[in-house]
Amino acid sequence: MNTDDSLSALAVRLDQFARARDWPRFHSPKNLASALIVEAAELLEPFQWLTEEESRQLPAERRQAVAEECADVLLYLVQLASALGIDLVAEAQRKLEINERRFPPGRA
Amino acid sequence: MNTDDSLSALAVRLDQFARARDWPRFHSPKNLASALIVEAAELLEPFQWLTEEESRQLPAERRQAVAEECADVLLYLVQLASALGIDLVAEAQRKLEINERRFPPGRA
Amino acid sequence: MNTDDSLSALAVRLDQFARARDWPRFHSPKNLASALIVEAAELLEPFQWLTEEESRQLPAERRQAVAEECADVLLYLVQLASALGIDLVAEAQRKLEINERRFPPGRA
Amino acid sequence: MNTDDSLSALAVRLDQFARARDWPRFHSPKNLASALIVEAAELLEPFQWLTEEESRQLPAERRQAVAEECADVLLYLVQLASALGIDLVAEAQRKLEINERRFPPGRA
Repeated sequence: MNTDDSLSALAVRLDQFARARDWPRFHSPKNLASALIVEAAELLEPFQWLTEEESRQLPAERRQAVAEECADVLLYLVQLASALGIDLVAEAQRKLEINERRFPPGRA
Repeated sequence: MNTDDSLSALAVRLDQFARARDWPRFHSPKNLASALIVEAAELLEPFQWLTEEESRQLPAERRQAVAEECADVLLYLVQLASALGIDLVAEAQRKLEINERRFPPGRA
Repeated sequence: MNTDDSLSALAVRLDQFARARDWPRFHSPKNLASALIVEAAELLEPFQWLTEEESRQLPAERRQAVAEECADVLLYLVQLASALGIDLVAEAQRKLEINERRFPPGRA
Repeated sequence: MNTDDSLSALAVRLDQFARARDWPRFHSPKNLASALIVEAAELLEPFQWLTEEESRQLPAERRQAVAEECADVLLYLVQLASALGIDLVAEAQRKLEINERRFPPGRA
């Protein structure tokens, strides 16, 4: 059971999308992990020469381009998790709990 | 309005987590995009020398390590989207619709 | 002293190139490391859906595109090393020696 | 003919290193490009939370760690270029010439 309805729905639709195009043979976890990092780089690219301050104040057009790259990363992440039977949101919650214990508040 | 309850809840909790540790000053979109690709690489690493076939049949222990890296990618993606006011699921749905039109089924 | 004449010459020319354009203010090591990984992703992209076998037999045109991405990675690597006073070839030789001891021949 | 003696020597030695361990079967261009970006991420990691200014003034120990990651990137880049018959330095010089024409000095 996936704890997250929207991501589950997205996973189902992505699976149908891939099957209708005979793409599952390309979608090995290895390839999906490669595709994901390629999209992560496209997400980093608009920020690479900006100052941190500029990156906090993106003009609307640039922000929209970034939104689309975020979407691409999520689409491959959902497909990879789906291929491996991973519940993304449950894993993220678990990891956040680990981090909450690992980095107690108020320490540098 | 975010269309995805679980990701929204995650975003709220991540925001509290970061604030309690005085981390928002580090969490510029530029830095979050860097952190995301570093995690995307940790997600690719276990696959880099596997064949595609092997990547489809990960042993349980390796699969769990991959699940944690997937979580890390999602956590930074949610924080980056949150910092920029991006609705991740809505953007992913929109991008998938674009791809459905762009790549009609049955073509190579 | 840099042990490698060609890379040294490249570093000098890249430094002149950047200075003539007033780019050194953008070329912090942090930004150069980001630019490098963005190029590394462009280098990975042409391979992401190929089989390993196909990647060993690239058509000439695709091979040339890959050659240009290799060049981009090297150009940023040389600039980053130069900014930090790192002798790339000496470090690579040292690392290779470490690997030679760390992975004795004939073991899995 | 490779224009760069040190990189050529490195390529020869890397080839011997890989053959002695029966690794060429793992070293498809696809896999080498994946390994390269994983190393590029390890090179980015020490910078991800630093300011640009801090990245220009790395303490000696951290600088040495970065030097080793630079070496790892170069080692995979040399192997990938070698596998595809690419002359890295010649390609980098050609790309730099293109950039010199593409970005005339004195323009923003």
